[in-house]
Amino acid sequence: MPLVRIDALPTHDDATLAALGDAVHQALTETLGFPEDDLFQVISSGGLVRYGTYPGIARDDGVVFISITMRVGRTCAQKKALYARIAELAAARAGIEPRNVLISVTENHPADWSFGEGVAQYLE
Amino acid sequence: MPLVRIDALPTHDDATLAALGDAVHQALTETLGFPEDDLFQVISSGGLVRYGTYPGIARDDGVVFISITMRVGRTCAQKKALYARIAELAAARAGIEPRNVLISVTENHPADWSFGEGVAQYLE
Amino acid sequence: MPLVRIDALPTHDDATLAALGDAVHQALTETLGFPEDDLFQVISSGGLVRYGTYPGIARDDGVVFISITMRVGRTCAQKKALYARIAELAAARAGIEPRNVLISVTENHPADWSFGEGVAQYLE
Repeated sequence: MPLVRIDALPTHDDATLAALGDAVHQALTETLGFPEDDLFQVISSGGLVRYGTYPGIARDDGVVFISITMRVGRTCAQKKALYARIAELAAARAGIEPRNVLISVTENHPADWSFGEGVAQYLE
Repeated sequence: MPLVRIDALPTHDDATLAALGDAVHQALTETLGFPEDDLFQVISSGGLVRYGTYPGIARDDGVVFISITMRVGRTCAQKKALYARIAELAAARAGIEPRNVLISVTENHPADWSFGEGVAQYLE
Repeated sequence: MPLVRIDALPTHDDATLAALGDAVHQALTETLGFPEDDLFQVISSGGLVRYGTYPGIARDDGVVFISITMRVGRTCAQKKALYARIAELAAARAGIEPRNVLISVTENHPADWSFGEGVAQYLE
């Protein structure tokens, strides 16, 4: 279920972005228990990505914005573990520095997903 | 109001994606009662779209991710009808197979929309 | 924190879109009190942007969709001030007409943000 959207500058080539996608997915499976095949990502480096230094972080053009949409229900502790693991794996697997990893989560509900066939699978 | 974002691989040409946009819009008007002119869509095939098989669906590169942002208030029954109709019309109008249609909904509130002129129309 | 996504047609060149990004950011700092360096934007003109006339607004291909993700907590009055100021500054700084400015807001929670280093800064 998690629908992951990653935006980056063309600084990163496609192989790096795919490795980042793998890193995010591994972190989601490890820390939140998502199944391995529960993978839905859109990765784009075609837009203008702009960033400041809030809250005191020296980002550079290696910055990546990771937006995750998933069902409500994860605890703060689980989210903290997720962020830490994404940052760790983004560095290890894609060479992206932890200072450059911005993550935001948006939550919805079981009725808000259809994985195919026109069915709301979580309501079945 | 519904703001619809569609992401696809370059597998689909622009005419197919426009037909898919029409299909989604028709489904929204039919099942949720949105006005015909209440159309706001961003359709992109420029990103890297990655997918797994969860929950047991054999997708292929014809996959499309449809993300809908709308006001809270629709029932589960309405959402189920929406998903079924989108899948049906995506096949009929754009030739996209139901197994390849992923849909997610994110809800917000009346104060969260301005349709133009700097006004929060739902609060007027 | 606000993560701003702007979608437009290629009608607008990059300089205009950057000026629009500046306008949105100025409005966010002025009306909602965000720090100057709290800037995170993705601006894209690569997709197919489609629009109707709801609710009686004569848009044209100069239309821009501005999607803002931020923490819950702003009042309706603050959001109204935000929309008015965005429309005003989009015209003044980027030459984009108020009728062409669509804005939607999605809210999340303090636990839903990591600004870098793998840390959930709002939970510290």
